[in-house]
Amino acid sequence: MTSAAAADDTTITALALKPGQLSPAMADYFAKCQEKLGFVPNVLAAYAFDNAKLEAFVAMYNDLMLAPSGLSKLEREMIAVTVSSQNRCYYCLVAHGAAVRALSDDPPLGELMVMNYRAAKLNKRQRAMLDFAVKLTVEPWAIEESDREMLRRAGFTARDIWDIAAVAGFFNMSNRVASATDMRPNSVYHGQAR
Amino acid sequence: MTSAAAADDTTITALALKPGQLSPAMADYFAKCQEKLGFVPNVLAAYAFDNAKLEAFVAMYNDLMLAPSGLSKLEREMIAVTVSSQNRCYYCLVAHGAAVRALSDDPPLGELMVMNYRAAKLNKRQRAMLDFAVKLTVEPWAIEESDREMLRRAGFTARDIWDIAAVAGFFNMSNRVASATDMRPNSVYHGQAR
Amino acid sequence: MTSAAAADDTTITALALKPGQLSPAMADYFAKCQEKLGFVPNVLAAYAFDNAKLEAFVAMYNDLMLAPSGLSKLEREMIAVTVSSQNRCYYCLVAHGAAVRALSDDPPLGELMVMNYRAAKLNKRQRAMLDFAVKLTVEPWAIEESDREMLRRAGFTARDIWDIAAVAGFFNMSNRVASATDMRPNSVYHGQAR
Amino acid sequence: MTSAAAADDTTITALALKPGQLSPAMADYFAKCQEKLGFVPNVLAAYAFDNAKLEAFVAMYNDLMLAPSGLSKLEREMIAVTVSSQNRCYYCLVAHGAAVRALSDDPPLGELMVMNYRAAKLNKRQRAMLDFAVKLTVEPWAIEESDREMLRRAGFTARDIWDIAAVAGFFNMSNRVASATDMRPNSVYHGQAR
Amino acid sequence: MTSAAAADDTTITALALKPGQLSPAMADYFAKCQEKLGFVPNVLAAYAFDNAKLEAFVAMYNDLMLAPSGLSKLEREMIAVTVSSQNRCYYCLVAHGAAVRALSDDPPLGELMVMNYRAAKLNKRQRAMLDFAVKLTVEPWAIEESDREMLRRAGFTARDIWDIAAVAGFFNMSNRVASATDMRPNSVYHGQAR
Amino acid sequence: MTSAAAADDTTITALALKPGQLSPAMADYFAKCQEKLGFVPNVLAAYAFDNAKLEAFVAMYNDLMLAPSGLSKLEREMIAVTVSSQNRCYYCLVAHGAAVRALSDDPPLGELMVMNYRAAKLNKRQRAMLDFAVKLTVEPWAIEESDREMLRRAGFTARDIWDIAAVAGFFNMSNRVASATDMRPNSVYHGQAR
Repeated sequence: MTSAAAADDTTITALALKPGQLSPAMADYFAKCQEKLGFVPNVLAAYAFDNAKLEAFVAMYNDLMLAPSGLSKLEREMIAVTVSSQNRCYYCLVAHGAAVRALSDDPPLGELMVMNYRAAKLNKRQRAMLDFAVKLTVEPWAIEESDREMLRRAGFTARDIWDIAAVAGFFNMSNRVASATDMRPNSVYHGQAR
Repeated sequence: MTSAAAADDTTITALALKPGQLSPAMADYFAKCQEKLGFVPNVLAAYAFDNAKLEAFVAMYNDLMLAPSGLSKLEREMIAVTVSSQNRCYYCLVAHGAAVRALSDDPPLGELMVMNYRAAKLNKRQRAMLDFAVKLTVEPWAIEESDREMLRRAGFTARDIWDIAAVAGFFNMSNRVASATDMRPNSVYHGQAR
Repeated sequence: MTSAAAADDTTITALALKPGQLSPAMADYFAKCQEKLGFVPNVLAAYAFDNAKLEAFVAMYNDLMLAPSGLSKLEREMIAVTVSSQNRCYYCLVAHGAAVRALSDDPPLGELMVMNYRAAKLNKRQRAMLDFAVKLTVEPWAIEESDREMLRRAGFTARDIWDIAAVAGFFNMSNRVASATDMRPNSVYHGQAR
Repeated sequence: MTSAAAADDTTITALALKPGQLSPAMADYFAKCQEKLGFVPNVLAAYAFDNAKLEAFVAMYNDLMLAPSGLSKLEREMIAVTVSSQNRCYYCLVAHGAAVRALSDDPPLGELMVMNYRAAKLNKRQRAMLDFAVKLTVEPWAIEESDREMLRRAGFTARDIWDIAAVAGFFNMSNRVASATDMRPNSVYHGQAR
Repeated sequence: MTSAAAADDTTITALALKPGQLSPAMADYFAKCQEKLGFVPNVLAAYAFDNAKLEAFVAMYNDLMLAPSGLSKLEREMIAVTVSSQNRCYYCLVAHGAAVRALSDDPPLGELMVMNYRAAKLNKRQRAMLDFAVKLTVEPWAIEESDREMLRRAGFTARDIWDIAAVAGFFNMSNRVASATDMRPNSVYHGQAR
Repeated sequence: MTSAAAADDTTITALALKPGQLSPAMADYFAKCQEKLGFVPNVLAAYAFDNAKLEAFVAMYNDLMLAPSGLSKLEREMIAVTVSSQNRCYYCLVAHGAAVRALSDDPPLGELMVMNYRAAKLNKRQRAMLDFAVKLTVEPWAIEESDREMLRRAGFTARDIWDIAAVAGFFNMSNRVASATDMRPNSVYHGQAR
C-alpha cells in the first residue's frame, strides 16, 4: 500500500475520495517525502485523487514556501501558522506549527503563533509582517496604501510585500480546503520539535 | 509593448513590480488571451513579474475554473463572485461579475451575486452551494459534517464538495492577493454583458 | 392599470400589499415619475398601500436627496450606495448605483461604491464623508467628537455633518424596509449609464 | 426663549445648529408638546434648524408610532427600545425606555428592553416581533422569507410585518442621527414611570 | 423562611438549586445584608446551594469591590456596569446600575454606563479606565503594552492596572454565571436612587 | 529566593508587582506546589503581591477545578482550554493545554482544544458541554432556556449546568487578568505530556 492509497480513508478527509493515478513526477515526489520525512503529508494524499490538482497544488506550495524570497522559510511558516490561527484550521496549525518549532529551534515560538502571535516578543519587522497577514485574513477589504506603507517602513520591498500577501492568501485557501473536507494531520507532527 | 510590460505600472497594482521574462508557454497564453478576449486580464499581468508564480497560478486557475467538474462553469463563477462579495474584492467582483453575466445571459444574476446572493431566486442546489461557500469564507472553523451533509442532500457528490471547497478557497486566496496589492481590473469588464 | 396598482404583486415586495387610494398630490407625483423616468420606482409603488406613509416617505426623501445642501446630489447618492453596500441591500444598490453612474458620468465609480468604496480614488473630502457614513452604519455607538472633528477638518460645516448623518441614517432605514419586504428593483436600472 | 431656540446649544447636539423659523403648524406642535408633556423633546429641537426637515420627521414619526396599526403603541415602543439597544443609542434608550415603562405600567419591562430583551418573559407574538426587529437591525442582509414566515406563524399580517419593519427601520435611522450629532435627551425622562 | 431558602425558586435562577446549609459566617453575612440592605441580593441566594462556592464568591467579590484600592468604589462599580453592558447581563446591569446611581448621586451616570459609556462626559482618567475595561472584555487577545501605557499616562499605577483588570475580569465571570442560569435581580433595585 | 519573590519580575507579568507577605496557609500551598509540581505556577506568583487576593483566587480555583462535581477533572480542563482558545489567552492555553494532555493521556486532544474543539471527535455529552461554554463565552447575552435544555438532554443535571457555567465564567475572568497583565506561563508546561 502506498501513502496515496490511504486517501481512500476517512482518516485523511471526510470525503474519502479514491486516490487516482499519479504522474511519474508526483510518484517521485511522494517517494521523496517518504524518504526524507518518513511519511507523506496528508494534504498531498488528500489531493492525490486527481493528479492535475495535486501538481498545481505542489507547484504553488513549493514556489511559495521554498523558492528564494526576501522572507526566510521560518518567516513564511510564521505567516502560515498565524493565518491558520485566525481561521482555526486544525490541519494547518498542527503541520505548520511543527515547522515553526523546527525551523526556529524555539518550541514556544510555534505555540505563540498557534495561540496568539501578539503575545510573542517579535522584532518590528516580523510584527509588521504578521499584523499585515492577520488584517489581510480578517478584513481584506480594509487593506489600503497605509498598510503597505507600514510594511515598507519595516524594511520590506515591493516583492516582499507580494510574498507576504501570497503566503497569507495561500493559507486562506488551504485552511478552507482543509476545513471543508475535515482533513486530518499526520499524527507524527504532534511530537516533533517539542 | 506587450501586456505583460504593463505590469510595471500602478494601473495594475500598487506594487508596480517589473514584468519578468515569460516562458514560451506563458507568452503563448498571453497571446491567446489577447486574441480571444482582446486583452490580457490584469491579474495575469500582475503575476508576470515571476514566471514560476504565473505558471503556478494559471495552472491552478485553469484546472479549477475550466476543467471537467460536476459544477458547471457558471456555478464556479457564481461561487467566485459570492466569495468575493464577502471579501469585498474590487478586482474579482468586476472581472467575475462580468463572467456570471455573460455565462448566464442574465445580467441581474451577476448583480445579485455581487450585492447579496440571498436576494437571488436560486434553486435548492445552487443555494446550498453558495451557502456552503459563504460559511466556508466567513467562519471556516465552523464547517462540520452537517454542512457537508447539507450539500449531499442537495445532490452533490464527494468530488463536487471538493470542487466547491477548492473554488471557494481559491478566491479566498486571490481576493487577498488582489486587495493586498490594490490590483485594478481591466476597464473593459464594466460594460460587458449588461 | 396605474403603477401603484402594481404593488399588489410579489414582483414588488413579498408582502403584496394592495395599493390604496393616492392623494391628488401623490397621483401627480407618480405621473411625473412616469413621464420623466419612464417608470415609477418600485419603492414608491411599495409604499402606495397607504397614502400617509407614502407622503411621509416622499417628503423626507426629496428633502434629503434633492433640497439645497452643502453636499452635491452625487455626494448624497455616494453615501446612499456606500451605506447600502454595508447593509447588502439589493434594491438600494441597484437603484442608487445607477444614480451614481449617471450623476458622475463615471460608471466604475458606481461599481466602486457598490463593491468597496475604499478601492476608489477619492479626494480627502469624499473619503472622510464616506468613512463617517460607514462607521455610523456599522458601529453607530462608537461615533464621537473626534469623528465629527475629522469631518470638520475635511471642510464640512455643522450643517453638512447633519446632512451626511441624515442621508446615512435614511438609507439605514430604507435598506431595512427593503430587506424586510424583499423589495425588488425595477429592472430598467440594470442597464442605465453603463 | 422658546424650546426651539434651545437648539443653538450644545446641550442638545454637538452641532449647535441655530434654530430656524418654524411654520405655524410646527410652532403649534411645539406648543402642544410643552402643554401636554411639559417640555419639547430634544429631538424636535434638534431638527428645528430647518422647518422642512422637522416637518418630514414629525410626519413620519407620528404616522409610525401613533397611527392605527395592528401593533399596539406599546409594541411599537418595545421595537424602538430593542433596536436602540442594539445600536446603543443613548438618546433613544432614555426617551423611549421611559415610554415603555409608562405605556406598560411595568418599569422592569422598560429596563429589559434597554438591557437585553431576551431576558424578558414575553409571549410568542412579542418575542417573534423583537427577534425580527433585532435581526433586521444587526444583519439586514440575512432576512429571508423564513423570517417573514416566522412572523406570520406568530399571527402577524402582511401589513403588520410592514409596520414592524418600518418602525425598526425608523429607529435605525434616528439612532444614527442621534449618535452622529451627540443628541442629549431631556433630563426629565430619567425619573419618569419608575 | 430565610432568604437562602428562596434559592429553590425559579424567581432566582432557572436551575432552582436547593439551598444548602450555610456556615455561621455566611449565615451572619446574609443576616447583615438583610439588616443593612433590607434584602439578600439574589446572586448570594443563587450561590447558597453550596457553602464553599458561596464563600469563595463572597471573599473575591468583597476584596475586589470593597477593599482599599487606588480605584474608588464608584469607579469599580462603573467598570462593573460598563463590562456588563458589553455582555448585556440583565442581573448585573440592574444591580450595579443601581450602585452607580447611588454612589455617584447622579442617576443619569448610571444610565450612561448601562446604555453607552462613550456618551458620558468623563474625565480622561475614567475614560481611559473604561476604554481598557471594554477592550479587555470585547477583544482580550488584543490587549498589549500600548494599552497598559495608555492607563499609565492617565495616572494609573501598576497596582491600579491590576485592579481594573481584576474587576473587569470578575464581571466577565459573573455576567456569564448570571446569563447561564437566567439569574433574576431583586426587584427593589429598579426604583433605587432614581 | 522563593517563587513568590519572582513576581517582582517581568518574566511573570508586565506589571512587575512586588510580592507581598504570604500567610502561613499560602506559604504552605506554594511549598506544596514546589514539591508536587516542581514549580509554583506563575499565576500564583502573579497574585502573590496581595495575600487576600491570592487566597480568594486559590479558594475559588480549587473549588471549581478540584472539588467533587458531576464533571470530571478532565472535562473541567477541557472547558478551561476551549474558553481560553476563544479568548486567545496564551497563559491559560499553555498551562491548561498541558493539563488536558496529561489528564486525558491523549496529547492530540489537548491540541484540539487549543486549536478548534469542533475538529475533535467528542461524544455527545462533551460536545454539548463545550458548545454551551463557547456560546457563553462569545455571546453570553444569547444564552436561553433552549441552551440549558440542550445540556439537560445531553444528561447534565442542574448542578452540572452550574458547574459548566462557573468554570467557563472563571476562565473568562482569568483569561482577562492574564491578558491584561501579559502573564507568562512557566516554560516547563511546553514539554509536558507530549
